[in-house]
Amino acid sequence: MHKGRLEAFSDGVIAILITIMVLELKVPHGDGLADLVPMLPVLSSYLLSFVFLGIYWNNHHHLLQAARHVDGRILWANMHLLFWLSLVPFTTAWLGEHPFAPGPVAAYGFVLLASGCAYFILSRLLIARHGAESVLARAVGADRKGLLSVALYATAIGLATVAPRVSCALYVAVAVLWLVPDRRIERVLSE
Amino acid sequence: MHKGRLEAFSDGVIAILITIMVLELKVPHGDGLADLVPMLPVLSSYLLSFVFLGIYWNNHHHLLQAARHVDGRILWANMHLLFWLSLVPFTTAWLGEHPFAPGPVAAYGFVLLASGCAYFILSRLLIARHGAESVLARAVGADRKGLLSVALYATAIGLATVAPRVSCALYVAVAVLWLVPDRRIERVLSE
Amino acid sequence: MHKGRLEAFSDGVIAILITIMVLELKVPHGDGLADLVPMLPVLSSYLLSFVFLGIYWNNHHHLLQAARHVDGRILWANMHLLFWLSLVPFTTAWLGEHPFAPGPVAAYGFVLLASGCAYFILSRLLIARHGAESVLARAVGADRKGLLSVALYATAIGLATVAPRVSCALYVAVAVLWLVPDRRIERVLSE
Amino acid sequence: MHKGRLEAFSDGVIAILITIMVLELKVPHGDGLADLVPMLPVLSSYLLSFVFLGIYWNNHHHLLQAARHVDGRILWANMHLLFWLSLVPFTTAWLGEHPFAPGPVAAYGFVLLASGCAYFILSRLLIARHGAESVLARAVGADRKGLLSVALYATAIGLATVAPRVSCALYVAVAVLWLVPDRRIERVLSE
Repeated sequence: MHKGRLEAFSDGVIAILITIMVLELKVPHGDGLADLVPMLPVLSSYLLSFVFLGIYWNNHHHLLQAARHVDGRILWANMHLLFWLSLVPFTTAWLGEHPFAPGPVAAYGFVLLASGCAYFILSRLLIARHGAESVLARAVGADRKGLLSVALYATAIGLATVAPRVSCALYVAVAVLWLVPDRRIERVLSE
Repeated sequence: MHKGRLEAFSDGVIAILITIMVLELKVPHGDGLADLVPMLPVLSSYLLSFVFLGIYWNNHHHLLQAARHVDGRILWANMHLLFWLSLVPFTTAWLGEHPFAPGPVAAYGFVLLASGCAYFILSRLLIARHGAESVLARAVGADRKGLLSVALYATAIGLATVAPRVSCALYVAVAVLWLVPDRRIERVLSE
Repeated sequence: MHKGRLEAFSDGVIAILITIMVLELKVPHGDGLADLVPMLPVLSSYLLSFVFLGIYWNNHHHLLQAARHVDGRILWANMHLLFWLSLVPFTTAWLGEHPFAPGPVAAYGFVLLASGCAYFILSRLLIARHGAESVLARAVGADRKGLLSVALYATAIGLATVAPRVSCALYVAVAVLWLVPDRRIERVLSE
Repeated sequence: MHKGRLEAFSDGVIAILITIMVLELKVPHGDGLADLVPMLPVLSSYLLSFVFLGIYWNNHHHLLQAARHVDGRILWANMHLLFWLSLVPFTTAWLGEHPFAPGPVAAYGFVLLASGCAYFILSRLLIARHGAESVLARAVGADRKGLLSVALYATAIGLATVAPRVSCALYVAVAVLWLVPDRRIERVLSE
């Protein structure tokens, strides 16, 4: 089975998700620049989710590049990841309408947490398929950054009721952590 | 005629369908996690349709992979399949707003039934084009799972007025039936 | 310049257009199958436009397959075609809400007419680029079916105020005319 | 790292952006052609943005065609460009609802300005990666047209409060400037 169509389908879904979030940016009624100020929370949550989906696309790109084979289980693990990512526009819109409210903050983190776990499962299935000695296995490694992200998401969810602003700061921190491109895979591949 | 663009177009349409369903997930007015509870029917019908569209993408992927040639009739049989699949977001939204109501339950099943028939027609045309001895014909085989699904959809539609919950259980059962990836095609191809 | 990315972009736009029309299918308020009856005009105009966009994708597929080279002018001629096609969801929604009303009937035909002219321009530019003796030029030929369609659209627009039902019948007639796949290009290519 | 998936993802996002703008074209309540007249500002801003996104796709196509390598930084510079482009439907809708109002005119120009800068950064990173003597560097050159566009956008933003119609004329002027395809890259590549 070729990985090309899996990549193309995933790219399509992520491209659509990253784009339809913009449909939540409702045009203000007024016509002054000051009318954009109340939109800042919506714009900020859009920016944050744009970065998160960009990170997933980027890492997915690297992961699949190192892969040689896909099978039915991997197709479904990928679909599972896409399912959780598909809920990002929903939690983004909710968070944008109720900035720093505990419910949306926790829901936003939960979807990120589930996406992180789905990505972890996908990478483990790919490693199991390619063998522990494969380029892919060495490139992914222990995936400490992935595990750290999941831990930070869980912490942020736990803090959502008591300190939702700290939770949001943790989401931003994870995004910054990943904006540094994943040099491990690039390094191993170029060896 | 090359099958590449047919695959790319179908992937594009299915990726968009699976994604725009999320636009039906309207943000709740409140900001508590409890406000998500009334959304459970909408989320459940979204999940079910996500799985169904994933199944179609998956099977379509396998079917086209075994194909060598496409022609004008096959292009239109594929378009016919995409037409019925394109109605899935509509029936999903209707079912999500009126969980277990006979009308939406029957309509949901009807679109699945029509999609199943369209897929069957597409696979028969592909087999006719490649010959009964082709890899594709052996891989698809008698397609008992496809015929069983169509029978279950028809049963569910018939039961929609008297036992809509049973109909929904049948839809879930068909989804579970297909979540097991289609090993027939993988087996024949790997021989 | 390679034609691959032009094909991919056009496929993407057409796939999105054909799919977002479904967002106009508003879920009925009631939960009975009878609530679908008032939707018949909307569903019919959706089906008709789905077929038209499918025809354009199909013919575009054939046209580009016979092409070898594209240049800047051809890219923009293609963009021009996509612009008019992008208005199809708008006129479809208007026609669906006001079935057989002169205004929407004329507007629907106008967008089809402009799309037909844009397709004609694109095919002429491609022929000019490949030469009158090219496979592409012989495959497209005099494009009598294209010219007939444009004439029928113009007639339908002219009749929109006096006999809008005849106009709609003409639109259906053009769709049926094209549903027969374009065997000319297939024939010339397979020689 | 291969550039194919970067191109495919960018094509997907731009194709979706160019298409979802049509969702802002709300169907008029009346059924006469005269009901389209109040839509002229919305249609005009749609057309202008369609052309701008078409220009970006076209130039992006040319730029990436001359590229050989991409890396993590280039992926993110590309994502940065897509982020600003993703705001085009928002400012287009705002401008369409308030034609020639200073706020939307300035916001429309700001998103174009930011997109122009993001494109400039992307092209500089690509040149840095390929070397000053590369085909890509010679093809992009000093990018005087890009710098002129950015200067015109800045002028238009500055004029938005005092002469918004002049600002809009400047936007149209930039679009016309770019509609002439970028022959530099074509010329250098064909040498």
